[in-house]
Amino acid sequence: MNYKVVFSILGKTLVLEAFLLCFPMLIGFCYQENNFLSFLIPILCLLLVGIPLSFLKSEDSSLYAKEGFVIVSLTWILMSLFGALPFVISGAIPNYIDAIFETVSGFTTTGASILTSSQIENMDKGLMFWRMFTNWIGGMGILVFVLALMPANNAGVMHVFRSESPGPSANKLATKLRFTARILYGIYIVLTLIQVIFLLCGGLNLYDSLTMSFSTAGTGGFSIKGDSASSFSSYVQIVLAVFMFLFSLNFNVYYLILIGNFSKAFAMEEVRAFFIMIVVATIVIALNIYFSLADAFSSFGDALKHSFFQVTSIGSSTGLTTKDFATWPTLSKAILLFLTIFGACGGSTGGGLKTSRMIILLKSSSTDFKKLIHPHAVITPTFEGEPLDNTTANNVKTYFITWVLVVILSTLLLSIDAYTDVFSNFSATLACIGNTGPGLTASVGPMANYLEYSYFSKIILSLVMLIGRLEIFPMLFLFLPSTWKKG
Amino acid sequence: MNYKVVFSILGKTLVLEAFLLCFPMLIGFCYQENNFLSFLIPILCLLLVGIPLSFLKSEDSSLYAKEGFVIVSLTWILMSLFGALPFVISGAIPNYIDAIFETVSGFTTTGASILTSSQIENMDKGLMFWRMFTNWIGGMGILVFVLALMPANNAGVMHVFRSESPGPSANKLATKLRFTARILYGIYIVLTLIQVIFLLCGGLNLYDSLTMSFSTAGTGGFSIKGDSASSFSSYVQIVLAVFMFLFSLNFNVYYLILIGNFSKAFAMEEVRAFFIMIVVATIVIALNIYFSLADAFSSFGDALKHSFFQVTSIGSSTGLTTKDFATWPTLSKAILLFLTIFGACGGSTGGGLKTSRMIILLKSSSTDFKKLIHPHAVITPTFEGEPLDNTTANNVKTYFITWVLVVILSTLLLSIDAYTDVFSNFSATLACIGNTGPGLTASVGPMANYLEYSYFSKIILSLVMLIGRLEIFPMLFLFLPSTWKKG
Repeated sequence: MNYKVVFSILGKTLVLEAFLLCFPMLIGFCYQENNFLSFLIPILCLLLVGIPLSFLKSEDSSLYAKEGFVIVSLTWILMSLFGALPFVISGAIPNYIDAIFETVSGFTTTGASILTSSQIENMDKGLMFWRMFTNWIGGMGILVFVLALMPANNAGVMHVFRSESPGPSANKLATKLRFTARILYGIYIVLTLIQVIFLLCGGLNLYDSLTMSFSTAGTGGFSIKGDSASSFSSYVQIVLAVFMFLFSLNFNVYYLILIGNFSKAFAMEEVRAFFIMIVVATIVIALNIYFSLADAFSSFGDALKHSFFQVTSIGSSTGLTTKDFATWPTLSKAILLFLTIFGACGGSTGGGLKTSRMIILLKSSSTDFKKLIHPHAVITPTFEGEPLDNTTANNVKTYFITWVLVVILSTLLLSIDAYTDVFSNFSATLACIGNTGPGLTASVGPMANYLEYSYFSKIILSLVMLIGRLEIFPMLFLFLPSTWKKG
Repeated sequence: MNYKVVFSILGKTLVLEAFLLCFPMLIGFCYQENNFLSFLIPILCLLLVGIPLSFLKSEDSSLYAKEGFVIVSLTWILMSLFGALPFVISGAIPNYIDAIFETVSGFTTTGASILTSSQIENMDKGLMFWRMFTNWIGGMGILVFVLALMPANNAGVMHVFRSESPGPSANKLATKLRFTARILYGIYIVLTLIQVIFLLCGGLNLYDSLTMSFSTAGTGGFSIKGDSASSFSSYVQIVLAVFMFLFSLNFNVYYLILIGNFSKAFAMEEVRAFFIMIVVATIVIALNIYFSLADAFSSFGDALKHSFFQVTSIGSSTGLTTKDFATWPTLSKAILLFLTIFGACGGSTGGGLKTSRMIILLKSSSTDFKKLIHPHAVITPTFEGEPLDNTTANNVKTYFITWVLVVILSTLLLSIDAYTDVFSNFSATLACIGNTGPGLTASVGPMANYLEYSYFSKIILSLVMLIGRLEIFPMLFLFLPSTWKKG
């Protein structure tokens, strides 16, 4: 482990977080709020730790996979530990573990909250801005940004990039890493601004438009309202739904559109599969809720709107809600449960297992299946127009199996908390590892929150959110003794 | 598809089922019951269909994987369709689909029932004998028996054998198939007889001892009592628990003990892992229920007994109960849920994913994981003293992924039934694919039954039980169009 390089990059990231914390401080200042120190103290702490670290120099500046994974994990943990301080100092979330849960939930774009509706409604503008901003920062990842500014360009950086950018296909966008990072951030910022404009047109003020766009762009799911997205107008709800969908598409699509390659953009297998999944789920749930809960919807169009909102929200792993879907009929809930698991496209800001992984799992399993009966047949599945090699397929399988093991372990550990039931714990785990937020039972559903879990469980769920956001492996490496060996 | 060979073997199996149906007919005769025709009609039907089929001759008697899989699947489906007739004709289960569910549940050793407590208590002795007998027949598999009597000994037979004998290691017992089958049946019959003697010593009459031994030996879980095993004496409960454990061990252990190779028998990795799992689960659950439900148990010893019974029952995929564990604390239920998934040892009569598969999944995933950080390291995991090759590891991964897909699809299809909740459907699917029986929510728990599911759902669950019992792939091949091509 090359500690000097690791600490130097960690230091730079902390300095960047200090810079990012200036925005909510300024917002609080504009609104003449009395929480100046809540931001200034963490900023000073960050600078005090970050600046000396960032000046560390190592003779050997190379990064290997090991260092890459450790940097990613520690960055996200440290950012959350420091990012939680404003909530504690201001007294908005007095308990530090609760504040860490909320901040991890923000950065990982999970959107699971320990705040009650009234706490959300009464939060200071500056603090709320920071809460919503964490969703936006976490959506694209902060390390990619730091690394894009650095000269080094080697294997370790690639590992950082792959871990932090959701999905298995992040490296395909362009060969040069810096160039790729700039394109990604460009697309991210421009799409966010377009959404802000659309929301302004719907009558929302600038603050509301900006913060709700942060939450949507990062597919985070925090809301400035105590009832998530229920009290917004239909226009605003539809804008949110459309943008949740757009942010959960593989960003390659936008890159291909930008360079004028429309045919390739619309031929992307993953995006087509995701699109079909969203359309089918929307229609089935709309029919299901309209005919089962006749009184709850004014027309089929109304049911369709709520279904579209909920499907894009869960499919994109955002987690905003317009209705309490924990009370919806069984079939609708089952579909939403599996959308939680499958998640968005790779290379988007969304979470879950990712559509591309699901396609690779399906294709390679069905090939293996056919080979059982035709042992000598040569069957090579393809993905996105290229043959699917065994290494990729095997990596995806390992990813999936490790994911299942984490889900099992987390469900077991949460079950030590006697107050809740096994399936709520299972649902909470899925909602956290997929970075979605709300679960499907009443106690962790869209109208509930995670406040009642014990501190032990909140720490477990925070770890699960980080494990999910950083694509499983980097966080697990922290628990491997060999990671910490010198050399 | 070589239809003639397939039909000829199917015919022989049906004739054997006719023979097996004579036992309950004789029992009914002994107890002077009035259900002679309920057995005679199915016996005549079986002979009428079976005898002509069994005389079909094909020039080409070779069996390939395809034929092997089709024979296994069709045998189990046909046996269930005919085996359900006595229940319908006697009027004990008037609806044919309900009767099929009960019979499939019996043959697959699931033990999920659509009968109410009073229906079970009032059933004729002959019919009840048949119900319990299906557990015993299904435990070891009927086709292996038929094939052991046949001269052919080629690849297809091996496929049949592997599909019907639970677990991935069935072929390791001895090289000669016939010899292996005889050893397996020998161990099975002797162990069953020993259990009968132990139960007779506990004061049970011969009928009760025999039928309860059938249910335990096959790790089925049907009971002659309306309250499963709750009303038996502690002695009987402990005998049942010990034998559920013994029947869920890999039968290789008994073979190795028989040939005097004790050191190898006790060194078996799978058996040791399973043993540790059972011991740890028993202790944790005993502590959990004793301290959470103080009034429910007279002493810690009492809690330990119930915990041991439930852990061996679920761990072996039997499903008998002494207490309503759906009301147990969350941690205990979570452990039981995962025991349902993991299941017994391979090469036993038990169900679930099998301990050996779990070990292979864990070992190969952890190797892949380590290779991520040390890409050039040569790490070869071993299983049962031999290096774990990539093909085996990949097959187990494919098995697991297909298993997950079946669970997802079944949960979705059951959710079309609006009356129940998503997690009950998930739990019911796990209990059926693992051939365990009772689920973990109140509506499908140990004190409930599957009666309230719609006929559509009962058909789905019957298919899921068959898919689980026949190791996933054979049943799925029936849905593949290429399976039915001539040639």
